[in-house]
Amino acid sequence: MTSRKKVQPPGAEKRIRLSDDLIWGVHPVLEALQREPGRVVEVILHREKRSGRIEEIVGMAREKGIKTTFVPSLRLVGDGAGDIRHQGVVARTSQTALLPFDELVQRFAARVRKGERPRLIACDSLQDPHNLGAIIRSALASGAIGVVLTRERSAPLSGTAAKASAGAISHIDICQVTNLVAALKKIKEAGAWVFGAVKEPAAQSLYATDFHLPACIVVGSEGEGIRPLVRRECDILISIPMAGTLDSLNSSVAAAVILFEAMRQNEGAV
Amino acid sequence: MTSRKKVQPPGAEKRIRLSDDLIWGVHPVLEALQREPGRVVEVILHREKRSGRIEEIVGMAREKGIKTTFVPSLRLVGDGAGDIRHQGVVARTSQTALLPFDELVQRFAARVRKGERPRLIACDSLQDPHNLGAIIRSALASGAIGVVLTRERSAPLSGTAAKASAGAISHIDICQVTNLVAALKKIKEAGAWVFGAVKEPAAQSLYATDFHLPACIVVGSEGEGIRPLVRRECDILISIPMAGTLDSLNSSVAAAVILFEAMRQNEGAV
Repeated sequence: MTSRKKVQPPGAEKRIRLSDDLIWGVHPVLEALQREPGRVVEVILHREKRSGRIEEIVGMAREKGIKTTFVPSLRLVGDGAGDIRHQGVVARTSQTALLPFDELVQRFAARVRKGERPRLIACDSLQDPHNLGAIIRSALASGAIGVVLTRERSAPLSGTAAKASAGAISHIDICQVTNLVAALKKIKEAGAWVFGAVKEPAAQSLYATDFHLPACIVVGSEGEGIRPLVRRECDILISIPMAGTLDSLNSSVAAAVILFEAMRQNEGAV
Repeated sequence: MTSRKKVQPPGAEKRIRLSDDLIWGVHPVLEALQREPGRVVEVILHREKRSGRIEEIVGMAREKGIKTTFVPSLRLVGDGAGDIRHQGVVARTSQTALLPFDELVQRFAARVRKGERPRLIACDSLQDPHNLGAIIRSALASGAIGVVLTRERSAPLSGTAAKASAGAISHIDICQVTNLVAALKKIKEAGAWVFGAVKEPAAQSLYATDFHLPACIVVGSEGEGIRPLVRRECDILISIPMAGTLDSLNSSVAAAVILFEAMRQNEGAV
């Protein structure tokens, strides 16, 4: 997946439901980009309303690696939306400040150099906000130091996901990346072994896997699993042995079972 | 908790949203009670519409241990509800046939006699249907042979829970009990050790717990945990060691971490 602007088909009006995580208008969006760029997850712009200050917004968003989406028409809907003049620019914000990815990699590498075995979890295109929130919660509780999310095709870090994380979203480092393949390469350079969670029984059993290593555990979406190019970056493919006739677990449950097994091995019986 | 009829305050109209798991009318409800009593989870009756056949419904529901609720007024709402004549009786059905509890106990005891180590999970007043469905799914995948639910204050086994179970609801024995304390006593007589999941760090660590035993794992609701009387029936209180500043996990995640640790110990590294 490469960084690109999404262009909707001509004539399609983008309707955005009013919610607490939206900000709108040229000045508020510019200010958010200046003051708290880590909290801005997407800027949505009317394709034809260009001006010097709009260009400034676009440039600043790109420089900070924030997703920009251009639409032919933009409308806020829902209670109170009628009174709003959005001036052709709306931004979605996260309830937590995101960490720049390079900084997470530096923190990871620093721990490895100290002889520690830090753990990360990376979620590939996880679209269900309940599962995303639950995974962030489990990551924190199992001692992982950070969560890496793909920028596209991931649930937003607001509303449902924030609620499902039960506050964990504000207590663990979270970053979004445009290209997970490139991100995993950097994490490996920082000393991590990359473990990919897959469903094939032919993969190595979770319980035969040695987690006494700096680790990045990669999980995919429930339907699709990990994408092929991401899978190729995994050093070890692991699966959870299962009984019964059905072959899958809820993705947040699968992530938790792996995260806690990694913690169990590293902390021992407490 | 004792079996009792729920009586709503005078004048309160019971509104029930039309859904696939409802049946209504004297004849259909009677027929469901005769043919598939295991699928009827609750019968809701208009307090003042009594007749011989209504009495027959009440008698049959009580005999089979099905919850009966009397309301001063009963109204179906939602699409298509206007045309319905419910005759003062509506039943909620489950998408799966429930197993009578005594039969589950017999199956458990038979496995224990054969030298096996069967596992059950019991959910005390678990009200969130997403969590209930996910726990049923994890129970099946981790090789548990059955799920015991409390009849009152539990999410219905339909709609959301069925969907969240991803089909598992039809592949594992599920039963509802009115009195979980009495049920745990019977499960212990059948040879089980009862493990209660609690949050106190003072409880025994999950990872120091020996699951090489016939086991019943008890989990509570996310907010309340296991009720005190139920807790007193537990042979061993266990907790999941956690890192970080927050002290809880999503209840379906906690159940899964315990269920898979029990499986790991019993199946060994696969």
